[in-house]
Order: sequence, then C-alpha cells, then structure tokens
Amino acid sequence: MRAHRIAVVAGDGIGREVMPEGLRALEAAGRRFGFEIAATDFDWSCETYAATGRMMPEDGLEQLRPHDAILLGAVGFPGVPDHISLWGLLLPIRRAFDQYVNLRPVRLLAGVNSPLRDVAPGDIDMWIVRENSEGEYSQVGGRMFEGTPDEVVTQVATFTRRGTDRIITYAFDLARRLGRGRVSSATKSNGLWHSMPFWDARFAEIASRYPEIEHDQHHIDIMAARMVMQPRRFDVIVASNLFGDILSDLGPGVTGTIALAPSANINPERAHPSMFEPVHGSAPDIAGRGIANPIGQIWSAAMMLDHLGEGAAAQAMLAAIEGVLADPAEPRTPDLGGRATTQDLGRAIADRI
Amino acid sequence: MRAHRIAVVAGDGIGREVMPEGLRALEAAGRRFGFEIAATDFDWSCETYAATGRMMPEDGLEQLRPHDAILLGAVGFPGVPDHISLWGLLLPIRRAFDQYVNLRPVRLLAGVNSPLRDVAPGDIDMWIVRENSEGEYSQVGGRMFEGTPDEVVTQVATFTRRGTDRIITYAFDLARRLGRGRVSSATKSNGLWHSMPFWDARFAEIASRYPEIEHDQHHIDIMAARMVMQPRRFDVIVASNLFGDILSDLGPGVTGTIALAPSANINPERAHPSMFEPVHGSAPDIAGRGIANPIGQIWSAAMMLDHLGEGAAAQAMLAAIEGVLADPAEPRTPDLGGRATTQDLGRAIADRI
Ligand SMILES: CC(C)[C@H](C(=O)O)[C@@H](O)C(=O)O
Ligand SMILES: CC(C)[C@H](C(=O)O)[C@@H](O)C(=O)O
Repeated sequence: MRAHRIAVVAGDGIGREVMPEGLRALEAAGRRFGFEIAATDFDWSCETYAATGRMMPEDGLEQLRPHDAILLGAVGFPGVPDHISLWGLLLPIRRAFDQYVNLRPVRLLAGVNSPLRDVAPGDIDMWIVRENSEGEYSQVGGRMFEGTPDEVVTQVATFTRRGTDRIITYAFDLARRLGRGRVSSATKSNGLWHSMPFWDARFAEIASRYPEIEHDQHHIDIMAARMVMQPRRFDVIVASNLFGDILSDLGPGVTGTIALAPSANINPERAHPSMFEPVHGSAPDIAGRGIANPIGQIWSAAMMLDHLGEGAAAQAMLAAIEGVLADPAEPRTPDLGGRATTQDLGRAIADRI
Repeated sequence: MRAHRIAVVAGDGIGREVMPEGLRALEAAGRRFGFEIAATDFDWSCETYAATGRMMPEDGLEQLRPHDAILLGAVGFPGVPDHISLWGLLLPIRRAFDQYVNLRPVRLLAGVNSPLRDVAPGDIDMWIVRENSEGEYSQVGGRMFEGTPDEVVTQVATFTRRGTDRIITYAFDLARRLGRGRVSSATKSNGLWHSMPFWDARFAEIASRYPEIEHDQHHIDIMAARMVMQPRRFDVIVASNLFGDILSDLGPGVTGTIALAPSANINPERAHPSMFEPVHGSAPDIAGRGIANPIGQIWSAAMMLDHLGEGAAAQAMLAAIEGVLADPAEPRTPDLGGRATTQDLGRAIADRI
C-alpha cells in the first residue's frame, strides 16, 4: 500500500485540539482510497520555546525535510511575542522549503452564516494566491537612536523579479488549470513608490502571455472594500505577502469561514515538502475547552492530499465537510451556533468519508 | 462678517462635479451661521500634468499656504500613472503641511444600505485615525539589476518615534474628547519584524497614560476580518499610513458609504492649513455624467468647518445629510438606488441647511 510520510506539528493552543481530527479524517480517507498516512509528531511549540529558548531544535528543518508534506496546527501563545514564535518556526519553514505559494480557497458554503446579506452558497468562490517567501515580511531594516526621542525604525520590503514573476505565473496557471476566467492583482502603486509599480509592470507582462484569461488590478484599499461590497467579482486573486495575508483573512471573514478556512504553503517544484495549515491561529481564548472547530484543519489536510496526488480522496474529504455543514442534524461547534465538541464534529466528518 | 479663506482644488473626474455641491452647502451654512467662504480655485489636475508635466506649479505649495484650509475633490485619471498624480499633488500637500492625522468617521447611517445583515443604523460608529505623514508610503528604496532576471526592488518604510507617538497620542486625545471608551491599534508585529514591534511598544506606553480608556491591538489581517464580522466592537482605531488606508476604505465598504465617506488631513497644531477630501477617487467610469454622489464632498466640507471653529454649522450640515438620506421622498443618486443627479442631491442638502 502506498504511504505518505507526514510531519505533524500541532503547535499551540487549539492547534493541539484540531490536529487529532485532521489525522482522523486522513486515516478515514486512507482506508477508503487505499493509502497509508505515516505520521511523525514534532512537539514544537511555544512551550518548547519557554523550556529551550528555541521554537524548534537547531536541526529542526533537517528533521522535517525527508517528509512528503507537513501538516501544521497553529503557532503562538501569550507570553511568547508573536514575532518570536513565528520567525522561529512558521516563517523559516515557509522560506527554507521555498514554499513561495500560499494558496487559500474562499467559498461561501451551505450551512455557514455569512455576515453579508444578499448572498447565496456558491456565490462567492475564489482562490487567493499569496506570495509567501519575500516582500513585506522581512527582517531587513533596523533602529537608530534607540530609546531616544529621535528614534527611527526602518522596515525594508524586498521584491525580486524571480519572486514576483513566479507567483504571478502560478496564479495564471492556476486559473488556466481550474478554468477560471480572471486574475485580479492587488496593488498600491499610488502610495508605495518602488515596489508596487514594479509589481504592476510584471503583472501586465505576464498577463499578456495568457490572452484567454482576463486580468485587472485594484488598489488594496478599494479591493478590501470590494471584497465586502462585490465579492462575486473576484475569481483568482494574486497578491504580495502582506496584501495576500490581509485579503485571505478578509475573504473568510466575508464568507463566515474564518474557523473553517484552510491554507497551503506550496513549493510547486516539489523540491521540498509543502506545508498545510488552517488559517485560524492558536486561539488562546478558547484553547483547552475542546470546542474549537476542526474543519480548517481537516480541509487543510484535504489540500495536502490533493498536493500528494490523492485528488479523489481530497474531493471526498471536502464533500464530507460540505455534507456535514449542510445537514442541520449533524453536530456543530459553538462558532457555528451549535454545542458540539471538536471531536463530535471531527467524527461526523470522518464517518462521512 | 468673519471669512474663511478656502483653497479649492476640484482635481479630476467626478472631483469637478461634486465640488460645486460642497461649495453650495458651505455657502448655505455661511448664510445661516453668519460667515463667509472666500474660495479661491486652483485648477490643478491630471490635465495640468498633460499640459505642463507637473501636477501643480513649482510654487504650488506656497500658493496654498496662506489659506485657512484646503478643500480637495479627487485626483487621478487614466493616462497619468497614479504614483505620478498622487506624489505630484496629494501626498506633497499632506507632507509639506505636516497633516499627520488622517481622520475618517465610519458610520452606519439611516437610509443607506450596508452589505451586512443584522446591523441597524447607529450600530457602527467609529473613528479611524490614520498616520498620514510617514510609514509605508515612501519614496525611499530603489532598484538594482533593472530589466534583468536578477532585478531586485526595495521599498523602505520609516517609522519615527515622533511620528508614531503623535498619532497614537492624537487617537487617545480624540477618544477622551469624544467620550469614547476604547482605542484599538492595528499591527502586524508577527510579520513585520522591525516596524510593528516598535509601533506596539509605543502604543502600550502611550495607552498607559490614559488609564480611563481601554485599549487593544489586532493584527491587520484579523482586524480586517473583524471589521466585517464584528464591526460594533470598534470605537477609535489608530493605524499606520498603509493599514489606516486599508481600514478606512474597508469601513465605508462595510457601512455602504464609500461614496459618502469624508476625510480630513489635519495639522493639529494649526501651523499649516489642513485639507479635507472625500474618500472616493475620481471615478473615471462615471465621470462626466453628473450622477456622482456629492455627500462625501459635503461631509468633508462639514469636517472642515468643524476644524475652522464652526462646530454648529458643521453639525447642521451633517444633520442635513442624515435628514436627506433618511427621507425616502428626497432625491438619491444611482449609487443609493435612485435616479437623481449630483445637483439634485446637492440642492436638497443645501436646502435643509
Ligand atoms: C490616492 C491615494 C494615494 C490615497 C492614499 O492611499 O492615501 C487614497 O487612497 C486615500 O486613502 O486618501
Ligand atoms: C501568523 C502569521 C505570521 C501568519 C502570516 O501573517 O503569514 C498568518 O497570519 C498567516 O496568514 O498564515
């Protein structure tokens, strides 16, 4: 039987609660579609940091490398500043394994309440393609006159042609592969003088190679407003690291799916393992109560299977999620207006798979 | 009779159509409250650029300086790249006159359709305080290996302690003055390694000086989602130049007021003229048809009067706007679902004043 070697990093907070449900769903899919999940746990978290001063061991990246994929829960917990927990684990993995695509589907699902009126399931259905390796997320920069009234801090965003071209090309290829009609680019060339005019020029050039796909661009401010006012108009969106980060939380906000939304950190060349994680964070406010919604984790696991060539299994997992959500008799966690536990909902989905 | 010397820059596109309605409302307010508007037109626009290669004359800033305030319509038009039109006019004015506060009210008004369900007029009522002089909007940075596959572009954001402290202090002072209970800060300290941890530290220190006002902070990605999911929770928001830009379009998107929203670019020390402009742009798609909604311009003019010490007149203008919107018998422009012209709506508001 074929086996997929998965590195499992549950992380912090509700990451530890939703991960077992992700694995349960994967195992159910494996039984049905004839593959095995060979999971190895990596107990790296903010607790590790408190004990060792590191979020992961020095050779952490080497430990992850031999796996076919990485399934992550959530990272970050009060007491450890975010910029430590993220730059000590999540961001180095994204970069070391050149996971330069962050891919997030945004969909209005039956059985989920969107805060918008006048929208119906299926109305909103977009893919957000976020640059995931460079741009605004950067440790370049520094401070001068620290601690004095004259203090100055610089933060340097770096855009390379290689990095910009490959993410925009990925977005157009995705549109072609999925039969999507339009790619929309997020920009802010009217405020950011160097980076965004460059981004726009690369977008225009690459778009011209895909004459069958429409393209347009929106300043990030008005694009954010349009996500709320006219979400139907978006199909595939391509955006820089920071803009993609904002849009891919806003999208699930608009569809009511923050707790459900998955994400994939992909190295399309498959030279390194890719990583799959829910959009939600470690949610310290509800951690430990067993009521977190596991769908983001399960959907992320489905994206992982798709990446590993198990397309049919991924489809079945997604169908199970949609089936449970659409059926009022099935369990719902409190965020969906129900009283079920993480396990109840996870089991219901695994049963349908 | 006291007079206010106003520099009027109608600019491009619908800026030219809504400005006369802003002036009409100001004159109505002047008649009622006993002041005069001494308006001087400055015909600076993208057309000026096409003819002269400059958005404004070389001594443009000096021409504006003697005025008590600047009323702006909208700048930008197809054919002139945005980063030229903005850095040639709007952004130099903001900076030369040290208008370091960009202030935008976001309100759910009676008679305006919000895209959200489950919200009622009055439910959403926040002030967005945006840093307006430094930060991410910057001409610092550059290109290397231009035009080659190795091309690299850097974009440098600069945060000073002076600039950061004064905007955060303004937000807390505003909250105190308006009797607002909470200031929320937009951050992204988990991705932007230098600038945002600094911003957070300054926010924490300044917040400690206002023990009677609550404070919290949100990463910009989840904050954008919360603007849609839980907009009631925000009261006063303080944010950097870029984050404030995004939030202050998203807010009006959520309340259905993109065409209505005003903004003030304020120099609180009154060492230089402040500038007032609608949030909307020049809207080339509808320009020339006389159907643009003038409320953003009129509300901006009301904020200008408030800044000039005409608080009662400002109140009356706002009441006229709200009265017209709430009354189904009054004219409505197409964006509000009606068939009225810019002038019809402008006249109706002026009549009520
Ligand atoms: C036109 C543009 C430069 C401007 C900005 O981003 O500041 C506008 O979006 C605004 O918010 O006033
Ligand atoms: C936790 C944080 C660094 C991360 C990001 O901004 O990339 C998260 O918000 C995400 O979107 O995956």
